[in-house]
Amino acid sequence: MTGTLYGVGVGPGAPDLLTLRALRIIQAAPVICVPQRTTSAESYALSIVRDILVPARQELIELLFPMSRDPDTAARARDDAAARVHAILVGGRDVAFITEGDPLLYSTFIHLYERLRAVQPAAPVEIVPGVTSVTAAAAVAGLPLVDGSEQLAIVPATGDPNSLRDVLRVFDTVALLKVSPVFDRVLDLLDELGLIENTVHITQAGTPAQQIERDVRALRGRQVDYLSLLLVRKTRRT
Amino acid sequence: MTGTLYGVGVGPGAPDLLTLRALRIIQAAPVICVPQRTTSAESYALSIVRDILVPARQELIELLFPMSRDPDTAARARDDAAARVHAILVGGRDVAFITEGDPLLYSTFIHLYERLRAVQPAAPVEIVPGVTSVTAAAAVAGLPLVDGSEQLAIVPATGDPNSLRDVLRVFDTVALLKVSPVFDRVLDLLDELGLIENTVHITQAGTPAQQIERDVRALRGRQVDYLSLLLVRKTRRT
Repeated sequence: MTGTLYGVGVGPGAPDLLTLRALRIIQAAPVICVPQRTTSAESYALSIVRDILVPARQELIELLFPMSRDPDTAARARDDAAARVHAILVGGRDVAFITEGDPLLYSTFIHLYERLRAVQPAAPVEIVPGVTSVTAAAAVAGLPLVDGSEQLAIVPATGDPNSLRDVLRVFDTVALLKVSPVFDRVLDLLDELGLIENTVHITQAGTPAQQIERDVRALRGRQVDYLSLLLVRKTRRT
Repeated sequence: MTGTLYGVGVGPGAPDLLTLRALRIIQAAPVICVPQRTTSAESYALSIVRDILVPARQELIELLFPMSRDPDTAARARDDAAARVHAILVGGRDVAFITEGDPLLYSTFIHLYERLRAVQPAAPVEIVPGVTSVTAAAAVAGLPLVDGSEQLAIVPATGDPNSLRDVLRVFDTVALLKVSPVFDRVLDLLDELGLIENTVHITQAGTPAQQIERDVRALRGRQVDYLSLLLVRKTRRT
């Protein structure tokens, strides 16, 4: 009997934003896997669930998913992680793979899941959705995302600038993720489009590191957190 | 002392997709408010939390937010609901307003919140984000939403057809909400754009009423559920 792979979203950072189902599955799983970006820093996902793990009866495995510019290096790391998880499942144990936010929204779980499906299409997989950083950021900022006929776009700020400009022109609300490496360039674009007053910068919503900045111009030239995002909301129509 | 208004997202429908925080706040609140579309059917949000309420020490208030084509009727109902909640808060009691999904993503909470802010800008409000129907639908369908540099749009299908066409052309993944009243028209558009094979229809993910249809053509001419949605995902880039 192959074990079940659980892809468990644990929310944006505050431990009490786990769902009841995530808590139950994590506490029952014999093997917990967490993604790690570097060997030098603790996994963010692990920091969210550390207090609910039961080390006496759970094996904890940190899987390295380096953010490499070299696609081969990244793919090799993903292959290694998937092979390791697959071996545990074939051995008959369940694995809970923990990801911050939601497992299917910009998550390393997607790579693991697709590789597992490729080698064993019928492998039992259960995906537990989680609260995303987008709705958590809106909540702490007190900012409605979309209402009625309005449209929401969730886009990485690191993409093609022309595409980003089009999205910002058309959509009522835009959540810009991965802003850190291109922050000043994004501020320029928001300025150009007359949207800078409509923008809020939120860092690690709901955690002790949380920061909310409504005057985003003040952040120009600063190094912003990797887990921060910008919410751009054009109008209120109530 | 004014009471606190809690806007509590209770997730897409399965009671165990409540967050730990939502559970704690709902069980502690002296007054629970739930939105209702008609007086004839139970509130969907209420059906999610009914089993965790404590009727012996909680007042339950159903607030009518009719889906009227007449904006004045809708606005008057929202004004009435806001006035009722405001009176309870001014009386010093906390109110937990329950919404399915997330309180700031197409939720009646937005109207309540903005009206309260208008009459009492400093009123204490705490917003608890919830799991959305979009990520819950993706989870039950086993469908990655977005990865890497990909872009996600969340749009009501009832909007302008040309705008919908543009969004479907440009975005990697599109979640189409409120598909029920315009379902066949949306199928035509997906057919025209060659996207119908990339589309999955999901109804009430994670509840006993859940349905997943990967051959969406089979639904043509049928009356689909008000709470159903379509996920359109163009490509996999792994």
